[in-house]
Amino acid sequence: MASPAYIAVDWGTSSFRLWLIGEDDSILGERRSGEGMTSAAQTGFAQVLQSHLDALAAPENLPVIVCGMAGARQGWVEAGYIDTPTSLSAILTGAVSVPGQSRDVRILPGLAQRDRQAPDVMRGEETQLLGAIAADAKGEQVVCMPGTHSKWVRVVNGQVTGFSTFMTGELFDVITKHSILSHAVAGAADVPADSTAFESAIKAAFNKPALATNLLFTARAGQLLHGLTAAGARALISGTLIGAEIAGALSSAGQGAAITLVASGRLQTLYEDAFRTLGLTYTTVDADAAVRRGLSAAAKAIWPNNERKS
Amino acid sequence: MASPAYIAVDWGTSSFRLWLIGEDDSILGERRSGEGMTSAAQTGFAQVLQSHLDALAAPENLPVIVCGMAGARQGWVEAGYIDTPTSLSAILTGAVSVPGQSRDVRILPGLAQRDRQAPDVMRGEETQLLGAIAADAKGEQVVCMPGTHSKWVRVVNGQVTGFSTFMTGELFDVITKHSILSHAVAGAADVPADSTAFESAIKAAFNKPALATNLLFTARAGQLLHGLTAAGARALISGTLIGAEIAGALSSAGQGAAITLVASGRLQTLYEDAFRTLGLTYTTVDADAAVRRGLSAAAKAIWPNNERKS
Repeated sequence: MASPAYIAVDWGTSSFRLWLIGEDDSILGERRSGEGMTSAAQTGFAQVLQSHLDALAAPENLPVIVCGMAGARQGWVEAGYIDTPTSLSAILTGAVSVPGQSRDVRILPGLAQRDRQAPDVMRGEETQLLGAIAADAKGEQVVCMPGTHSKWVRVVNGQVTGFSTFMTGELFDVITKHSILSHAVAGAADVPADSTAFESAIKAAFNKPALATNLLFTARAGQLLHGLTAAGARALISGTLIGAEIAGALSSAGQGAAITLVASGRLQTLYEDAFRTLGLTYTTVDADAAVRRGLSAAAKAIWPNNERKS
Repeated sequence: MASPAYIAVDWGTSSFRLWLIGEDDSILGERRSGEGMTSAAQTGFAQVLQSHLDALAAPENLPVIVCGMAGARQGWVEAGYIDTPTSLSAILTGAVSVPGQSRDVRILPGLAQRDRQAPDVMRGEETQLLGAIAADAKGEQVVCMPGTHSKWVRVVNGQVTGFSTFMTGELFDVITKHSILSHAVAGAADVPADSTAFESAIKAAFNKPALATNLLFTARAGQLLHGLTAAGARALISGTLIGAEIAGALSSAGQGAAITLVASGRLQTLYEDAFRTLGLTYTTVDADAAVRRGLSAAAKAIWPNNERKS
């Protein structure tokens, strides 16, 4: 087994993922928990990190590279933003050190688009992007990173020229939990199981995104008038939000641009289904693997001799 | 003072409004409360009605005409739906009697659009519509009734040919209360006070409705990057949702159709500002007056001799 070289952490708003990475880039250990920024801001970031390092018996001298919301203003240490347009590798140079730690802990910056008309920010996805796109990629690429706040990024010859956040995941959550549509989806499983309703909503919202908030209401009216099931309503809401997102994202990108989907699990399934339904060409990169590759690239840039250390 | 002729009630999901109407259509008394369907379903519809009748010392023989959610399945007595396309006057013939009451209490039906692709329902707005549109109106009219669930209705030569519900008001509510944007609007007053941000969002969302869920996120990014105020964020969210609604509603109506806005108070101000910003022609009908006129038309149709009674 390879010797451990560094610790990689993807620290989001509501999730914490940590990997112990070996000299040969192998995964020697892994931890996942719900101790995201929101929770860690209460209990202490250093304590949360240490508890997971202890659980893996990580060597004391091992450095830690972190991406995500731990670098937000309300996080551990603010890591700022790199402004677009930028090369992806610029984020490697913007890492900030966490002071007062026994180990070398660095947090990567986010990306900011300071455009007055379309301000936007990301934290964590820039590291996924770094791991998903080859540094020497040529031409235009459109990268879709679905989630609570889906990010669509335009990369031209390795430069991030712009990006857009769509609140798809969070809207799905608040609509199905707090709006009148919560009754329409009551009892339905988490995963939209009604692929007919999902695909029909994807097409309807993609073709007429202006009607998105009207299509959402058909989840209620369909239940009252046509006996739409809870699973059908859930699929309809999900499909409407994702279909409108894709329409919006592609309205600013070239229609013929190659789409790279960075996702895993349930979101991968949903977005692949959506792209197929719309006849869009895409390639999928596993989101977990992408963020690890991005963290690894950062670790190697920051500690170039680490692979020969320990 | 005129003798009382009947009681008119607009019984919504979360609001209750009652008027004591005289033989000459004058308002002899008025009651407003938050005892909408949700609350009355717990405490009892008959009790809620009686308490307000007692407060006005309404004569015992006076009949009561009701519109709104009191006629829903989960309401007092289900009043069903009149299907589109339909003449507006058809709702007058669909009123159901509430059994077991000492007075004659009738609840008006709603409207249903049973289209498989675009199912939709309304309850209460059909009565507003009846009061807002002249029965002998010629040509095409587009009627906008903003609210928790905004209704846009197409009326051609007095026939309701179709309608669409947009979840604008409710989305504004759940987004500003339950999403990450709740932080961006924290402390802002109820009324969007930043008209520049509102009008700019109206235009942006109307021109690119596909980007609505992206524009929403600029409320957060604008705060992080450009110091957008809470009032500005609130106005931006409101303008985005209303701008997208108008774009969607007009995408299915003729662009040149005359818009009748049925609204009062804060919503009237917001939608008039939106229409002016977009250069759209409209006329406004007061929402309260419209529902009273609709209830009055129903009362006169159901109890034709009532004006000479008492």
